[in-house]
Amino acid sequence: MTNPSGPTVADIGEFPVIERAVRARRQPDSTLVGPGHDAAVVTASDGRIAISTDMLVEGRHFRFDWSSPEEVGRKAVAQNGADVAAVGARPTAFVVGLGCPPETPVAVLDGISAGIGEAAEEIGAGVVGGDLVQAGQVIVSVTVLGELDGRPPLLRSTARPGDVVALAGRTGRSAAGLALLLSGNRDFPELVAAHRVPTPPYAAGPAAAAAGAHACTDISDGLVADLEHICTASEVAIDLDSGALAPDTQLRETGRVLAADPWEWILTGGEDHALGACFPREVALPDGWRPIGVVLEGSGVTVDGQRRDGSGGWESFAAGAGH
Amino acid sequence: MTNPSGPTVADIGEFPVIERAVRARRQPDSTLVGPGHDAAVVTASDGRIAISTDMLVEGRHFRFDWSSPEEVGRKAVAQNGADVAAVGARPTAFVVGLGCPPETPVAVLDGISAGIGEAAEEIGAGVVGGDLVQAGQVIVSVTVLGELDGRPPLLRSTARPGDVVALAGRTGRSAAGLALLLSGNRDFPELVAAHRVPTPPYAAGPAAAAAGAHACTDISDGLVADLEHICTASEVAIDLDSGALAPDTQLRETGRVLAADPWEWILTGGEDHALGACFPREVALPDGWRPIGVVLEGSGVTVDGQRRDGSGGWESFAAGAGH
Repeated sequence: MTNPSGPTVADIGEFPVIERAVRARRQPDSTLVGPGHDAAVVTASDGRIAISTDMLVEGRHFRFDWSSPEEVGRKAVAQNGADVAAVGARPTAFVVGLGCPPETPVAVLDGISAGIGEAAEEIGAGVVGGDLVQAGQVIVSVTVLGELDGRPPLLRSTARPGDVVALAGRTGRSAAGLALLLSGNRDFPELVAAHRVPTPPYAAGPAAAAAGAHACTDISDGLVADLEHICTASEVAIDLDSGALAPDTQLRETGRVLAADPWEWILTGGEDHALGACFPREVALPDGWRPIGVVLEGSGVTVDGQRRDGSGGWESFAAGAGH
Repeated sequence: MTNPSGPTVADIGEFPVIERAVRARRQPDSTLVGPGHDAAVVTASDGRIAISTDMLVEGRHFRFDWSSPEEVGRKAVAQNGADVAAVGARPTAFVVGLGCPPETPVAVLDGISAGIGEAAEEIGAGVVGGDLVQAGQVIVSVTVLGELDGRPPLLRSTARPGDVVALAGRTGRSAAGLALLLSGNRDFPELVAAHRVPTPPYAAGPAAAAAGAHACTDISDGLVADLEHICTASEVAIDLDSGALAPDTQLRETGRVLAADPWEWILTGGEDHALGACFPREVALPDGWRPIGVVLEGSGVTVDGQRRDGSGGWESFAAGAGH
């Protein structure tokens, strides 16, 4: 862990740290009751609210020798915000559970809190509550709320044969960045940055819902793995067009330098937080979306009609996978 | 940790464990989109939603040699549910982040999930989403949503001199149960049960809001400590009447057996998840509430006009405090 000088959490206590985290943070109009009470109250204008939760663990989802505390906080917001965007919602509020050892410098928690607060503010959302507890490692547990603004929620279970599969954002960049960090190579800072702080195409989710998309998912476990979830839930197959997914110069060059196959990153790399959706063929794709395949009768994901070998993604507990 | 026989999380993987946690769990009408998508969608009928989050850590907030996994799950629901009750809301939905070592038996996670699911169902709420990650110890991070049903949210900052301070539920029982567990004494199973699974007076929060209470708080850190938060936020003082708080036979007897002062438990014991509120003097207290003091000009909490020595509660990181 980085070890900024200054007091630790044990030195100053729980309440002052929480106070520092919420002090002077602006709240959007959607925050009706902010921090400082037993619960916050936020708007849910159309009588519904979208909710998703994720937990990030030091040493597994982030490392302080690779990411600053601010970047860890920003990544937590991106990861959660993409989940509500994937159902067509607009992130409006975050609550944060932080666990850490008592010897954790307050500056680390201040950094995580600042990253969360700034990233939330940039997308128009508030940080409305939190909890700080003692734990054996740094844990960042984030829950996000999102407004659907009258749109139908996008599910994973409603893709139909004949739909166009489309992608918003890019895949493989976070995995390439992780490979660069693991190798010690620092020649491709944009890819390393994509791993440290993903930038989900937040507006693409609501735009897909407004356009009448049939199904949508966040690409967090890998393109093939996440589209497999749509296939399973919708009882369909998906065939991807390799021509629409081909690695750009940066990914090809990184693959050459690291003696790695950039297609692995593109098809199986996690944590890009792009969005994948299935649109009726007659719908004009909204801004930010490009076609990458088609929905067919059957099951599972193919690329150019070929079934991939291997797991097509990584699970949190699978031996040796991910980080 | 208890070590039931059977497979571990590493044996069967993340997705099957999550699948087991949500399978066959009934959802209330308030769950519009349940688990299985990137985010859930729940009702927020009056256009607002209350939200609160808490994190429980193995070895700090629970121990598997003292509590079953089911009890840990139930306690997490109680702790969170009381927070939204304290603003006058009715808990409707929970999301859960679970962290655990890969060698954790699946039966432990199944037990925690069952406890959360059953406790949520008993209060009419759904478990609508979750995340499972690898961590160095078992971490249960719960976020709750609550419906205000048109009621004004209860804050900590709106108590007024002249208000009646009232309590719903009892304090000191969880701390007495913890002291019994620490001593190895098993003669007062009701108090031990109160520590393992608090039973917050959920309906008392909405009832207080409907009756026009000025301020409310969950009693989680200790009666004096939590009422201090109301004093600080409202810029008032509170004087408690010892006659209204006197220990019952069980607490007196436990104090005698353990050579401890039951008043310490009543005034400073945490985790009872009773509710404390301030009502205008002219309001008839709703069912479940009894008067325990008055709001005065000034600052801080006194008992029979006397200021207490000591911290009046425990903080997560304070040396040697709590458990």
